[in-house]
Amino acid sequence: MSDLTELASQLRFVLVRTSHPGNIGSAARAMRTMGFTGMTLVAPHRFPHDEASALAAGADDVLENAALHAGLVDGLAGTSLALGLSARRRGVDLEELSPREGVARALAAMARGEKVALVFGNERTGLENEELARCHAMIRIPSVDDFSSLNLSQAVQVMAYEMRIAMLGDQAPAAPVRADAEPPADAAQMERFYEHLAQTLDDIDFHKGRAPTTIMLRLRKLFQRAQMDERELRMLHGIFADAQRMASIARGKSGEQ
Amino acid sequence: MSDLTELASQLRFVLVRTSHPGNIGSAARAMRTMGFTGMTLVAPHRFPHDEASALAAGADDVLENAALHAGLVDGLAGTSLALGLSARRRGVDLEELSPREGVARALAAMARGEKVALVFGNERTGLENEELARCHAMIRIPSVDDFSSLNLSQAVQVMAYEMRIAMLGDQAPAAPVRADAEPPADAAQMERFYEHLAQTLDDIDFHKGRAPTTIMLRLRKLFQRAQMDERELRMLHGIFADAQRMASIARGKSGEQ
Repeated sequence: MSDLTELASQLRFVLVRTSHPGNIGSAARAMRTMGFTGMTLVAPHRFPHDEASALAAGADDVLENAALHAGLVDGLAGTSLALGLSARRRGVDLEELSPREGVARALAAMARGEKVALVFGNERTGLENEELARCHAMIRIPSVDDFSSLNLSQAVQVMAYEMRIAMLGDQAPAAPVRADAEPPADAAQMERFYEHLAQTLDDIDFHKGRAPTTIMLRLRKLFQRAQMDERELRMLHGIFADAQRMASIARGKSGEQ
Repeated sequence: MSDLTELASQLRFVLVRTSHPGNIGSAARAMRTMGFTGMTLVAPHRFPHDEASALAAGADDVLENAALHAGLVDGLAGTSLALGLSARRRGVDLEELSPREGVARALAAMARGEKVALVFGNERTGLENEELARCHAMIRIPSVDDFSSLNLSQAVQVMAYEMRIAMLGDQAPAAPVRADAEPPADAAQMERFYEHLAQTLDDIDFHKGRAPTTIMLRLRKLFQRAQMDERELRMLHGIFADAQRMASIARGKSGEQ
């Protein structure tokens, strides 16, 4: 996990000419949820600002440690790969990557010990061509054509999420083991369960001339699918036993008539 | 593209007990950027609201067409698969999926023509256990342990993005349609099923002082997992009816004693 933290520290989220301080705060929170803390602010319109702090929702450390620069060239100092987020295809003839392709490229550089920047433009105007020209490739989040503009912090969230997924990669957590997990029912227990179920159906006079085989096959299919554990089996055995008890009393009653 | 729109219309984003109207607006925008328009609001604290409209940033159609319901059961009516977003592992032991696994499962159901719900809880408290019990599995966005809470609309954005990527990925999902397939039970049918089951357990005197709530939650979990179709529901209703009939005769008998 400290390896992940180390790796994560090589990535910077660079926000350029951000208009709304609230978006800076939301972006900090979005980064922080995915384990990233390196934020660079290039010529933000208003910062620091109460709205930024409010929307950071506890990710204050990200804001406090944010690097502030007047221009993008300074903001990218120390990074060897800069990927610019862009909603639209531009006149700039930069290679266009999907988020996943961009993240793979970023991660490869980070694995070599390089510092990487993801660059996000102004909310309304995006990245200027001159800013994109400072980037090595651009990443387009595949939004729909008729409503293509993600909120800035949403774009940050998508990229931070994709980056974390890629970093977790194959060290993906194995199936979560529940401490309270009940053992799954084995085949022999399932057979006893089906026998009890079949007997119960007989006792409550469910079949009424229908083929018990078809019904039992359908019930088997259903309960096999559910992959029950032992506690669930005990519960159902208990229910069957009560239904049988009622049937037995009822049968006594019918017998009297 | 119209195929994608058609497919997208089978997915609903269900927001439960949302506190901040601004988050509803941001969620609408997030959905809309990825081509989704089906929003369901369950007991929102304030809606409609100016802040929701402001933050929708042009996705007003999503808000205008949002379905409003007082409870989650109604909110899920018509859907056959409900996946609940949950930040934490809970005492509820529902299957836990990654966003990508959840999206794959959702898309498979949608390709069969089914309606699917992604369910998002209250900003502060998330989904209650009873709400999660209405879901077939839960999805955990893999945030870091020490800062795990995504803003609501950010979680919506991540899921909408993953869903769109998956939809773009397998443009032509070969829907494994079985000729003999029965329609899957929808949420309202499942509720009637659970009511009948609960009544039957009462009638056969199953509880004997034990808490019916715990038992019913366990049974819900079991049967939700099985994702039953309508024919299976009819079969189980028939079994319950016969058990009730026996109990009723038996009760007549006991009354005589």
